Amino acid sequence: EKKGNMETRLNSTEEQLDQLKNQSADELKVAFSAGLTDSGIVGPFDEETTLIFSKTITNVGRGYNSSAGVFTAPVTGLYFFSFTAADYLKGYMGLYLYQNEQPVSFSLDLNDHGGYTSMTSAVALQLDQGDRVRLALPASYRLYDDSRNFSMFSGFLLFPV
Amino acid sequence: EKKGNMETRLNSTEEQLDQLKNQSADELKVAFSAGLTDSGIVGPFDEETTLIFSKTITNVGRGYNSSAGVFTAPVTGLYFFSFTAADYLKGYMGLYLYQNEQPVSFSLDLNDHGGYTSMTSAVALQLDQGDRVRLALPASYRLYDDSRNFSMFSGFLLFPV
Amino acid sequence: EKKGNMETRLNSTEEQLDQLKNQSADELKVAFSAGLTDSGIVGPFDEETTLIFSKTITNVGRGYNSSAGVFTAPVTGLYFFSFTAADYLKGYMGLYLYQNEQPVSFSLDLNDHGGYTSMTSAVALQLDQGDRVRLALPASYRLYDDSRNFSMFSGFLLFPV
Repeated sequence: EKKGNMETRLNSTEEQLDQLKNQSADELKVAFSAGLTDSGIVGPFDEETTLIFSKTITNVGRGYNSSAGVFTAPVTGLYFFSFTAADYLKGYMGLYLYQNEQPVSFSLDLNDHGGYTSMTSAVALQLDQGDRVRLALPASYRLYDDSRNFSMFSGFLLFPV
Repeated sequence: EKKGNMETRLNSTEEQLDQLKNQSADELKVAFSAGLTDSGIVGPFDEETTLIFSKTITNVGRGYNSSAGVFTAPVTGLYFFSFTAADYLKGYMGLYLYQNEQPVSFSLDLNDHGGYTSMTSAVALQLDQGDRVRLALPASYRLYDDSRNFSMFSGFLLFPV
Repeated sequence: EKKGNMETRLNSTEEQLDQLKNQSADELKVAFSAGLTDSGIVGPFDEETTLIFSKTITNVGRGYNSSAGVFTAPVTGLYFFSFTAADYLKGYMGLYLYQNEQPVSFSLDLNDHGGYTSMTSAVALQLDQGDRVRLALPASYRLYDDSRNFSMFSGFLLFPV
């Protein structure tokens, strides 16, 4: 009876330990960084356009789709995103960060000299599994990137919730 | 005797497992992001003033007080903070990052054109439980934000120490 | 026989629990931030030069060497790095981020007014144990820092892989 009790407890302990090990091993590993392009100037476009950061630098957990420029949350959780955008073009440089169809933030910088300039922003977002995060260039705006990676998009899972 | 020994070991194993599960479930979940304001220009003030990033985007672990603009560390640990500040006003834009009453860093940018500009900074800080982190605007400086979230303050726990 | 079986299981459970506890306690604790210098202008140099961010703000896990300006990965894993560079000098301000001898990104900003300006960038990198990450100033470029910490270099382990 006592021994049966211990066996039950040991069964439960083993199960919980396995869960915790899997959690520790798998769930927390989501991170990506991608550069924009090697092709120089991006834009201007006639309408707001999702930017495709096509040069994958890292992509653990397969959350980031470098063909679409979209990160899709593999688990519900808190995520941190940052991006840097650059250009050497006179005029406004700007980027919307979207969670699904909702703009979260806008970053805007007037380049009045035509030399290189850059801007960066970052935000922690609570995402449901399947939520998409992407960066969009407003109509008529332009960015620049080449093989030196001036413009980058990064994100990672902080913790599941 | 042998069996008593096993029971003692199982007791201890169960306790440690519970601790580890709680640790994994609770302690590591601290993150926030907040936008500054929907009201347009902030400042200038006669003296250095703590900025109240009042628009909570995320706040897990209740470390960030959006009425005061102050993050208070719920556990002793390493934290990472970032902020972006924007304006479209000629003159200097600047922000101090404070740990308690100690300035940690200063970010400064001259806007000489009166178009939008932004600046961003980030730092990893070791905080004792109860330490406060906030951003302060120097006397006579101004910032800008509206519903598009140009100016944001974010932070999260990296790990307890 | 049954009891022997339980003892074997308990032995294994205890071992796995210890591993998990050590993992949770040790592996995940790597983070640093450092300010550049209290001495004012850095550069220009005749050739590209690794910047020595000599003012350690935090350094858990001893990955960052503040004499060399180099972070060396203590474990194979995903790491996140950010830096902010400032100056108040007319001309180009720029920084390469290196993984070993490979430039990962370039950040560049024209200061056309001679007032303070700053730029920030961030990236998630997969590093092998022993990989080195550092920031380098191109030949003829300059940066500025003083006791207020305008220019900072930060990084932390996201997770081992």
